[in-house]
Amino acid sequence: MYSMRSIGSVKSPYSKTRNIPKGLGAKHEAEGVLEILPEFEAGLTDIEGFSHLFVLWLFDCSQGFALLGTPPSDNRPHGVFATRSPRRPNPIGLTVVELLRRDGPRLHVRAVDTLDGTPILDIKPYLSSVAPEQLRRGWLAEAEARKGQG
Amino acid sequence: MYSMRSIGSVKSPYSKTRNIPKGLGAKHEAEGVLEILPEFEAGLTDIEGFSHLFVLWLFDCSQGFALLGTPPSDNRPHGVFATRSPRRPNPIGLTVVELLRRDGPRLHVRAVDTLDGTPILDIKPYLSSVAPEQLRRGWLAEAEARKGQG
Repeated sequence: MYSMRSIGSVKSPYSKTRNIPKGLGAKHEAEGVLEILPEFEAGLTDIEGFSHLFVLWLFDCSQGFALLGTPPSDNRPHGVFATRSPRRPNPIGLTVVELLRRDGPRLHVRAVDTLDGTPILDIKPYLSSVAPEQLRRGWLAEAEARKGQG
Repeated sequence: MYSMRSIGSVKSPYSKTRNIPKGLGAKHEAEGVLEILPEFEAGLTDIEGFSHLFVLWLFDCSQGFALLGTPPSDNRPHGVFATRSPRRPNPIGLTVVELLRRDGPRLHVRAVDTLDGTPILDIKPYLSSVAPEQLRRGWLAEAEARKGQG
């Protein structure tokens, strides 16, 4: 077992899980703030040069885990490691956000998809992308195709 | 404080940190295996449909953290959250790998950049990319430009 601590929290417009856009075609355009604890502020040095960041955070409202689950974007079950389900063996969430500006220990970002008050575990620079033509999206592409047919 | 557990480990060709390609122009082409513990194998259901995966893992050889550090790709210090330094407040590593094939609880992948035996915390499908023309890479782009001039 390994111990993790919060380095700050997300200020987001979503106070309830049901308000967060989910499922096929969900758009994440909400703006929010990553509020980093003062003791970690020096760790943000030079972060303003990056357009996009990975944010690792904690599904702190999630209880236990399920190895199979049916996500909001499909009507069929899939393995937890093939989905973004919150009910994971280690309840770590991962979001790519666009960094709009930095204000000391506060990072103003776009594309927040977490609840207000979500604990942040880590922030990393987003350095490279997989070329779109190389990306296969498994059951999600199939669910989208079925929806398109329906 | 939050407790995390290992869901498996990475089988990689790198037994020593110094063997892992680092710094500007480092290529990660090594093949390896994500060996998931039998109790979590059902969580891999349908993962073979995805070409790329996020792997969250533990820098288990890292001791403590430093808020500022000079990465192998530059000769200037930057904040830990603007780098991929192992010496992080929460020592979580993040790698994007290409899934080559699945063999039961073993995922054969390309682009492993961890030490052999590294504990895995989570696996998630890689679903979308930031368009290259929208990506700014901060100090890393500057370090590359300086190297090009030198």
